[in-house]
Amino acid sequence: MQRTLINQTPDLIDKKITLKGWVDSIRDHGKITFIDLRDRSGLIQIVGQNLPKLGSEYVIEVLGQVKQRPEKLVNPNLETGKIEIEAEKVTIISTSQELPIPLDASDQVTTTKRFNYRWLDLRKKHSIFQAWTYLEEGMRQYFLSNNYIQIYAPSFMNTPSESGSEVFSVKYFNTHAYLPQSPQFYKQMAMAAGFEKVFCIGPVFRAEPSFTTRHTTEFTGWDFEVSFINSHLDVMAIEEQMLVTAFSNLKQNLLPNLDIPTAPFPKISMAEAKAKLKTAKIKNEKGDDLSPQEEREICKIIKKETGSDFVFITDYHKSKSAFYHMRLDEGSDRSRRADLLYRGIEVTTLAQREHRPDVLEKQAKEKDMDLELLKDYLNFFRYGCPPHGGAGIGPGRFIMKILDLPNVREATYLPRDVKRLNP
Amino acid sequence: MQRTLINQTPDLIDKKITLKGWVDSIRDHGKITFIDLRDRSGLIQIVGQNLPKLGSEYVIEVLGQVKQRPEKLVNPNLETGKIEIEAEKVTIISTSQELPIPLDASDQVTTTKRFNYRWLDLRKKHSIFQAWTYLEEGMRQYFLSNNYIQIYAPSFMNTPSESGSEVFSVKYFNTHAYLPQSPQFYKQMAMAAGFEKVFCIGPVFRAEPSFTTRHTTEFTGWDFEVSFINSHLDVMAIEEQMLVTAFSNLKQNLLPNLDIPTAPFPKISMAEAKAKLKTAKIKNEKGDDLSPQEEREICKIIKKETGSDFVFITDYHKSKSAFYHMRLDEGSDRSRRADLLYRGIEVTTLAQREHRPDVLEKQAKEKDMDLELLKDYLNFFRYGCPPHGGAGIGPGRFIMKILDLPNVREATYLPRDVKRLNP
Repeated sequence: MQRTLINQTPDLIDKKITLKGWVDSIRDHGKITFIDLRDRSGLIQIVGQNLPKLGSEYVIEVLGQVKQRPEKLVNPNLETGKIEIEAEKVTIISTSQELPIPLDASDQVTTTKRFNYRWLDLRKKHSIFQAWTYLEEGMRQYFLSNNYIQIYAPSFMNTPSESGSEVFSVKYFNTHAYLPQSPQFYKQMAMAAGFEKVFCIGPVFRAEPSFTTRHTTEFTGWDFEVSFINSHLDVMAIEEQMLVTAFSNLKQNLLPNLDIPTAPFPKISMAEAKAKLKTAKIKNEKGDDLSPQEEREICKIIKKETGSDFVFITDYHKSKSAFYHMRLDEGSDRSRRADLLYRGIEVTTLAQREHRPDVLEKQAKEKDMDLELLKDYLNFFRYGCPPHGGAGIGPGRFIMKILDLPNVREATYLPRDVKRLNP
Repeated sequence: MQRTLINQTPDLIDKKITLKGWVDSIRDHGKITFIDLRDRSGLIQIVGQNLPKLGSEYVIEVLGQVKQRPEKLVNPNLETGKIEIEAEKVTIISTSQELPIPLDASDQVTTTKRFNYRWLDLRKKHSIFQAWTYLEEGMRQYFLSNNYIQIYAPSFMNTPSESGSEVFSVKYFNTHAYLPQSPQFYKQMAMAAGFEKVFCIGPVFRAEPSFTTRHTTEFTGWDFEVSFINSHLDVMAIEEQMLVTAFSNLKQNLLPNLDIPTAPFPKISMAEAKAKLKTAKIKNEKGDDLSPQEEREICKIIKKETGSDFVFITDYHKSKSAFYHMRLDEGSDRSRRADLLYRGIEVTTLAQREHRPDVLEKQAKEKDMDLELLKDYLNFFRYGCPPHGGAGIGPGRFIMKILDLPNVREATYLPRDVKRLNP
């Protein structure tokens, strides 16, 4: 008999159906047993007699009849609370050992232990990954309806990426390869190849021995890159539109109370941000950059002033800019970099890139980069390359903040950090 | 002035517009110069006088007027062949050095040299990645409309994956990590977590010193996994529906002549395949498996018999099955594995998984696996895990065959193999 999902049962009163799912809880009342059965769609009460011996989290099949409950027995806290299933036959599909962690009340065990049993920890947290799915789909709707091409950047590089520091090294036959910190060079290559508009989704790697709530050694990155822009303002406008579409899709399909941002987002220069923080008596901890504390505080200030959860910080000093960020103007010590903050945390770095090979070489030298290691990259710009820019976005941080999770690891399917490589 | 794309120009006769793109070719006729200008949307002829000195692949901006060509000068081979642009002003945006490879006539240089300059090699091959984009989007339409959840599998593992051989090793702080051959264990973990239906897209890694046209050390994998199936037949039915949707989306948006497959696809057991090959006098090169030559031949035979470009090969011998593949029946020496072949090449391996921990342990021991290294994986099945199965799909091979490319590298944005880690 075809399986029915639990959330379909309210429309099937008096029908005979087959349910499959997990034993969420059991209450024995002498001869009668009550089971809460859980599947991916919901929870429902099963009533049965002479059932086989069951345990928590057993996977079972229930053949039974959908019955309306008497008015006084309706459970208003359950979507299926007006009905229950009179079981005719219960079959055990898979048994369970005693659970090493409770499935609810996550705070009863350490985070470490929960993550050791991530497949149990996630049994009642599917919605985190439904949120990812809808957010990504909304993002893609924007890019596809604007004729972007998706590219798949490689994970093996022959040089240690953009900075030389903090990259993972892989034994690669008779040589070594390096794992990328971002698809930066590869999406810029698509601009040199004339693609004009690309997006790119995939893992990026950071070999930082970091123990914060915001960092993991591997995370999913969303990137896009666009040609023939006039400045980084164009990149900000694109990200705004993309986020409005992505948030709208998430709201529509999963989170009806989610706030959809309004474009344009507030934009302030780093100097203005520092001035506002000074007025609010927040200590300047990082000179020309923002500390995590300053990021939280400037977001609070902007939220108060404008109502926006988002703010772009612009006009970074060249010392806080990559060698490939274009300067604000000829001779300026500020760059066309901007960071997007969302509810107290940096979620994007974007910039117009320097596409003129002579200026790019000069800026690389100023940063003491080895031009020989950058040879392929620098060659991208020698055969006709349009002005371009793009953004690198951390969707895990969005999910963390949207769902109010305390740590980006909680928003990550299987987080990897200095101390964790399993399960 | 707002930029116009070249494919919009036929609707703008006598209008003044700005185009931006690459100089595809130049023909000097004394005072008058003809330029073929190329952007991501098409090619158009520019006519101008007293233009600045230009070279091939310069990026330029053209301010000019759209003019209808006289009837006898219409170029029927060009979508914009009925019009041309009378240039008022041409501005150089980016110059080009002499090209190291020709952009057309790729056969004039070695493949190695072409791939050394992949950003030039790709300038007229955007459609390969448009095909990827539409194929993936069609695949996602299927999964999303069937309520799958997307997961992002990690790239760092603490054990050498499924087989122990041929994996890349990464220096990971004070220990080592390994790069996955597939997200197999992680998507099965989602079944243990009760997700029931997931898909997963990302890079997978093969440390094989392979020099074929079908293998690279890194490629994009598409995976899905589904719970509460009855057998591998359910997995085949899902892949069929998914491919019909994906191919339809590609046909609709890019390749009007693409054949949409019809479900169900032909299915034959390995024994039947071997019998057919024997009748056709094809040498049995690989015992219980199919050699590349046998894959090509069996596809030809099935195409002749049924008209189908696709065929599932089922009932693999246990020696050609992973330890986690469920046997056909209790005690059988055949497994619930099936491979999908498309136009002569394997594009999918799928199976129902063994979800009973005792049977799984027994099968792992038969394959001489180290149960200690599999500890986390085996634990997935001890706390209530439904029957499940799924597939691992190689989209690069689909693109190769759909576009009739000679090598999977040509379908890969930046291929990586034993001898190539750049650009």
